[in-house]
Amino acid sequence: MRLRLTPRDTSFFDLLAASAQHLVTGSTLLAELLGADRPTRKQLAKQLSETEHLADDATHSIMRRLNQTFVTPFDRDDIYALASALDDCMDYMEEAADLIVLYKVDELPARVSEQVQVLQRASELTAEAMPRLRSMDDLPEYWVEVNRLENQADKVHRKLLAELFDDVSDPVLLMKLKEIVEVLEQAADAFEKVANTVETIALKES
Amino acid sequence: MRLRLTPRDTSFFDLLAASAQHLVTGSTLLAELLGADRPTRKQLAKQLSETEHLADDATHSIMRRLNQTFVTPFDRDDIYALASALDDCMDYMEEAADLIVLYKVDELPARVSEQVQVLQRASELTAEAMPRLRSMDDLPEYWVEVNRLENQADKVHRKLLAELFDDVSDPVLLMKLKEIVEVLEQAADAFEKVANTVETIALKES
Amino acid sequence: MRLRLTPRDTSFFDLLAASAQHLVTGSTLLAELLGADRPTRKQLAKQLSETEHLADDATHSIMRRLNQTFVTPFDRDDIYALASALDDCMDYMEEAADLIVLYKVDELPARVSEQVQVLQRASELTAEAMPRLRSMDDLPEYWVEVNRLENQADKVHRKLLAELFDDVSDPVLLMKLKEIVEVLEQAADAFEKVANTVETIALKES
Repeated sequence: MRLRLTPRDTSFFDLLAASAQHLVTGSTLLAELLGADRPTRKQLAKQLSETEHLADDATHSIMRRLNQTFVTPFDRDDIYALASALDDCMDYMEEAADLIVLYKVDELPARVSEQVQVLQRASELTAEAMPRLRSMDDLPEYWVEVNRLENQADKVHRKLLAELFDDVSDPVLLMKLKEIVEVLEQAADAFEKVANTVETIALKES
Repeated sequence: MRLRLTPRDTSFFDLLAASAQHLVTGSTLLAELLGADRPTRKQLAKQLSETEHLADDATHSIMRRLNQTFVTPFDRDDIYALASALDDCMDYMEEAADLIVLYKVDELPARVSEQVQVLQRASELTAEAMPRLRSMDDLPEYWVEVNRLENQADKVHRKLLAELFDDVSDPVLLMKLKEIVEVLEQAADAFEKVANTVETIALKES
Repeated sequence: MRLRLTPRDTSFFDLLAASAQHLVTGSTLLAELLGADRPTRKQLAKQLSETEHLADDATHSIMRRLNQTFVTPFDRDDIYALASALDDCMDYMEEAADLIVLYKVDELPARVSEQVQVLQRASELTAEAMPRLRSMDDLPEYWVEVNRLENQADKVHRKLLAELFDDVSDPVLLMKLKEIVEVLEQAADAFEKVANTVETIALKES
């Protein structure tokens, strides 16, 4: 059990929690975007892009504080890796939304919703877990569940790929859909990276 | 010359050697898969996937021990990088096998065998080198040869790309073959990453 | 303000400056290649490949020295990250040139020149900034400007993608052009990575 941290250190936890909170907003916007029509999609992608900017600012705050703080609550490299991985989750979700709009893809395969549902669940779990880094409570549940989700995402992703190549005969549409599906898979991988970094931190503290 | 290490430390060498041994199994299965018919391919891909799970467990054991051991034989980050790079080699080989089955590609270009031969040779060299980390004997031969192999793989890869674009007129088949060829190239890069990490470790120890 | 460094340490600055200087040569060759005919392109790609080998040697010198030097002017990992990021800039520029030749793409979209102009400006700024690491003078101007350039490159890249999918009906040509455009975008990202690493170093020193 860790002792109470000095006030100056606590801000890392707040900043990480704020960063993860943006992921919940981002994945919710992405899920809405899937079901929306083209003009609404454009608007939602813009909102997601603004959320990404806020997340970017949060990441920069963490990095700046990290570089200027002598004593950090955890290993400096682990906080750095955690902030970077959180940032990657957002970047991939924003990229997926952006590609859907840019490529003017009207209909997405049904299974893409399953990919995004995994991202929504993973972002909620991540946002709930970040504040628990302070006390180190109940973290294994979090990383085990995110790893399970990523395995599920991986299976959905492989099924989707096979379906795309079986069902889509237009090679240009195939290229577009494949890229969107790959970027969503990279988002799921990024959430797993966050969970693995939390596991690393927890193992060092135990 | 290093002194004999304490028993507790030796396990890192054993774990790394075990991890590299899975790569030999994996690359052998991948080579068999190339020459097999579709049902046998499916079976071999499944075996490769099981080997990948074993390799994954080996990586997790290394990481766990790394996070809980105070004194490690080498720089902690270098062991981490080495275990990650070994893991990447396996992941790419498994992904290539999986894509060949998933995309139902019956005929692969002849040069793909050359790519896989490089992976087989690189995995053998890697498996032979890992136990030598203990004594630091004859490591330069290993990393020089793997770097040479990666250069060779790079040339094969570029020739293959040019051939694919010249010879394959069906854009969907082209997409499938290109992705398989790229993933095999990433596997060769991952073996080079392993060798470069070993070089880094050796330079620090010298 | 830092004190003058001991002679032994200064070589890191010289090596980093030399490495960045190769990027100026590389991006100039890449810009020339865009406007050249096919045989001249082949020749310029070869020159770029030779420049990449020189850059590679510079990176290896930095790494070797890093692993054998006990006291380094900055955090060891930061120098490592900086050298790796400089190396990546060159690798992506060389890869782009190589793909243009390999894929026998005669006409490139006009906006590709805009991508390469960003790389030229970024490489000049980087080459000017590296020697200033010694005194830590005027570095913020550098990283702010490179970040601005990368944002500009990102916008050009997204416009290019949309244009490619709107204008190029041949899926095979589309695949070729898309890959070239993506690799140039990765080069721009790599320059931003260099700038971010310099920012990290400067923040730690301040």
